[in-house]
Amino acid sequence: MLDLALLGTGAMLPLPNRWVASALVRYRAHLVLFDCGEGTQISVRSLGWGIKAIDLILISHQHADHIAGLPGLLLTLGNSGRTEPVHVVGPPRIHEVVAGLCTVAPYLPFELRVAEWRRGDCLTLDDLRVTCAEGVHHVPCLAYRLELPRSPRFLPERARALGIPVQDWKRLQRGEGVGDVQPNDVMGPPRAGLAVGLVTDTRPGPALVDLVHGVDLLVCEGTFGADEDQGRAVERRHMTFREAAMLARDAHARQLLLTHFSPAMPRPEAFADNARTVFGNTLVGHDHLSLSLRFSDD
Amino acid sequence: MLDLALLGTGAMLPLPNRWVASALVRYRAHLVLFDCGEGTQISVRSLGWGIKAIDLILISHQHADHIAGLPGLLLTLGNSGRTEPVHVVGPPRIHEVVAGLCTVAPYLPFELRVAEWRRGDCLTLDDLRVTCAEGVHHVPCLAYRLELPRSPRFLPERARALGIPVQDWKRLQRGEGVGDVQPNDVMGPPRAGLAVGLVTDTRPGPALVDLVHGVDLLVCEGTFGADEDQGRAVERRHMTFREAAMLARDAHARQLLLTHFSPAMPRPEAFADNARTVFGNTLVGHDHLSLSLRFSDD
Repeated sequence: MLDLALLGTGAMLPLPNRWVASALVRYRAHLVLFDCGEGTQISVRSLGWGIKAIDLILISHQHADHIAGLPGLLLTLGNSGRTEPVHVVGPPRIHEVVAGLCTVAPYLPFELRVAEWRRGDCLTLDDLRVTCAEGVHHVPCLAYRLELPRSPRFLPERARALGIPVQDWKRLQRGEGVGDVQPNDVMGPPRAGLAVGLVTDTRPGPALVDLVHGVDLLVCEGTFGADEDQGRAVERRHMTFREAAMLARDAHARQLLLTHFSPAMPRPEAFADNARTVFGNTLVGHDHLSLSLRFSDD
Repeated sequence: MLDLALLGTGAMLPLPNRWVASALVRYRAHLVLFDCGEGTQISVRSLGWGIKAIDLILISHQHADHIAGLPGLLLTLGNSGRTEPVHVVGPPRIHEVVAGLCTVAPYLPFELRVAEWRRGDCLTLDDLRVTCAEGVHHVPCLAYRLELPRSPRFLPERARALGIPVQDWKRLQRGEGVGDVQPNDVMGPPRAGLAVGLVTDTRPGPALVDLVHGVDLLVCEGTFGADEDQGRAVERRHMTFREAAMLARDAHARQLLLTHFSPAMPRPEAFADNARTVFGNTLVGHDHLSLSLRFSDD
């Protein structure tokens, strides 16, 4: 199981009633933060999932509305008693940007491990595997995929039929062989895990379709709701609701959650149909909307 | 006339119901911002005084809760159509800190003029004169005084008695002589102007008493309300309510406005009497509290 909450849904700047776009993922005892604009730490506090467990911060790109809240969040993380290392991942130049911002957070009680990623880079947090792909924006930009694999089901009737004593079942479940019997002999077919795509501040494109292929949830920017803003979306290297829906459709995502709304769009829900005519299972996000993803056969 | 609003009243970090301490001063068409922590731009927007007119940003010191909101505010100022230079004033190292933060705001449509101040430095914005004094904190820290002088009243009966033609009165009012008659000959006694003191993140001390002597309004930190927190105030180089009141009393201020409350103090008003027993005219601030100061004989 994996929970995801939108901490904010705004583009460009925080507004009195809308934080800048950011999402928090909860998996077991870990929190993963996606983007950290000005005010994100306040929204984290309001959400109530805690802050100390933020192990990993994924940054899409270096624009202020996606990273300017980092020093404040790190200081508050420090004040929460955090002493374990915190990972920050982002596109090229992330080192320099984090170092600049952290001029006002020079002393942290934990190690900050900053990594510049390119396509192909990945890390695993517990079982959660994080990968990325390059987006297309005015500055280097990354989209991310979080993936939680699921092991096949253990089949006791098969183990019994093969004459494996009950006390040896655990070994097979752990992936060890018992005599001639291999784990695969007593396991069911592969089972679908869970996957989430996190895409913002980019034009759509084949690299993103590949990255988020088959995700259970695609959190994707929809800076502009109206189809008429398509030209503006191209010019500013963002997406319309319709384009985000096409990405979800092409990638065979299960659900689309739109976020990162232009400040000129006070009621994004009004444009929902522009996405839903392309991809029916579309949710228009709002601050603190949260979803729980469960394995499909749970 | 001069208006002042508290944009936030919190110490250390922004909370869901309390922005970090910051104040906005409005004088004619100018806005002067005092400190700019994370979220300050959102509070500026809620206040409704506009943002484009921010000509001067006074920074008390480099701790994140007093400056981390600067890049976001500057970007929003840029998006407001601002093209005139913006002045940022702060203690030593302010250049370096602003440069670090502005890694995420590299392109602004106006010139940013950053100045490192020490006691004795000053600038004048229209008629508003800004001076400073050093506070005592863990890092270099400045307190500020804003002063609006008032010219003496022009006395028409005196001008008439001296035989000055009405068409020459304007020259005297502008400070020019007319024949043997000097402006002083037709002006009343000196008149009190308006002054505001802005003091935060410092222990009290004689330099501050001098700086804010006789101000109409002293906006001063009161990080701790309870007298029992006196030891903590010394250790963390802040003030209790009582100490702020003693500063107001010793400086012969007219009114004290307390701000910069510890996050551990959800109801600062409960401690008001600790200040008022020392200095009666004390207001306990809250976000968006605003006051209008008028010349005493208006």
